Amino acid sequence: MTDEPRRRGAARTDELLRVTLETAAEVGYAGLNVEAVARRAGVGKHTIYRRWPTMAALLLDALSRVWTTDLDYHDTGDIRADLREQFLRSAPALAAPPIGPVYRAVIAEAQADEALRATLHDRFLRTVEESTLARIKRAQEAGELVSGVDLTFPAEVLCGTLYYRHLLSTRAVDETAVDALLDMFMAAYGT
Amino acid sequence: MTDEPRRRGAARTDELLRVTLETAAEVGYAGLNVEAVARRAGVGKHTIYRRWPTMAALLLDALSRVWTTDLDYHDTGDIRADLREQFLRSAPALAAPPIGPVYRAVIAEAQADEALRATLHDRFLRTVEESTLARIKRAQEAGELVSGVDLTFPAEVLCGTLYYRHLLSTRAVDETAVDALLDMFMAAYGT
Repeated sequence: MTDEPRRRGAARTDELLRVTLETAAEVGYAGLNVEAVARRAGVGKHTIYRRWPTMAALLLDALSRVWTTDLDYHDTGDIRADLREQFLRSAPALAAPPIGPVYRAVIAEAQADEALRATLHDRFLRTVEESTLARIKRAQEAGELVSGVDLTFPAEVLCGTLYYRHLLSTRAVDETAVDALLDMFMAAYGT
Repeated sequence: MTDEPRRRGAARTDELLRVTLETAAEVGYAGLNVEAVARRAGVGKHTIYRRWPTMAALLLDALSRVWTTDLDYHDTGDIRADLREQFLRSAPALAAPPIGPVYRAVIAEAQADEALRATLHDRFLRTVEESTLARIKRAQEAGELVSGVDLTFPAEVLCGTLYYRHLLSTRAVDETAVDALLDMFMAAYGT
């Protein structure tokens, strides 16, 4: 029975994070503030502020809740096919609700807040870069990619190019873009 | 004498754009609004709203004012050296005042506004991609890069990777990053 308050607290937290995502998806970034989330969740603003000092902190936790390991790379032994499959699967998942609007909102806030930018990178983008690096390193060990090359920056190029297209243009991260990116990557490092 | 009102109008516009940049550099994105710019410029808010319906529209024009052709590529006949020189020259110019804070603010606003994102891409990023493409196409014609390859997407990769690092991490666009990017580009397309 001593765990009951903790369980209730966890349920309340989960509910708040769910409502945050829901609100972001419905009202968009412009209408997103602690007041709107509190109203929809039926709690006082102080309940939110006690735990999350800023909207950005709340958004980061809301993002974490839905950022799943489903976004991980497969390993079928064909590096080009596995990268292609993951990019084409994760790009729409990261662009659409529930992740899309919240992710964009955090990225926007991070432009004016270097500490938030560091947290955003540590909690999300570093993870993406590292899982990409892990997958292409395995391909290198398997002889699919040239040996003796440090692939750390190429992993950043793969992720960065697709983020750039998503954030700074109205062009989609589609098959044409992904294939062109993989053409360049394989031209550079394929065996 | 009939041109006098037009000249005065142009001078007033230029002054407003200058003040916008100055305000952005000093107060940062958080403190940036039409009221603050109007106060510093000594004009009424309506004077600004008559010409620029949103802060974003004003910011785009302010950016245009200082976005100079000094950011263009050189052509010494050495593609790797010319790309390197341009990346290392333009990255700090785009990150520091007067361009840096305004550019980041527009990019942040564009995350919640697809029309602004399209305008931002058309007025600035497309220009960057196209001048990069023009420079690497000349290198291809000169035999420095492999022939028969469409370099449109590689130009996007070059720009996008550096924007990603600038916008979504706290890592600098430094010599190490630029050299690693050029290693990949030349491994893919160098002759």
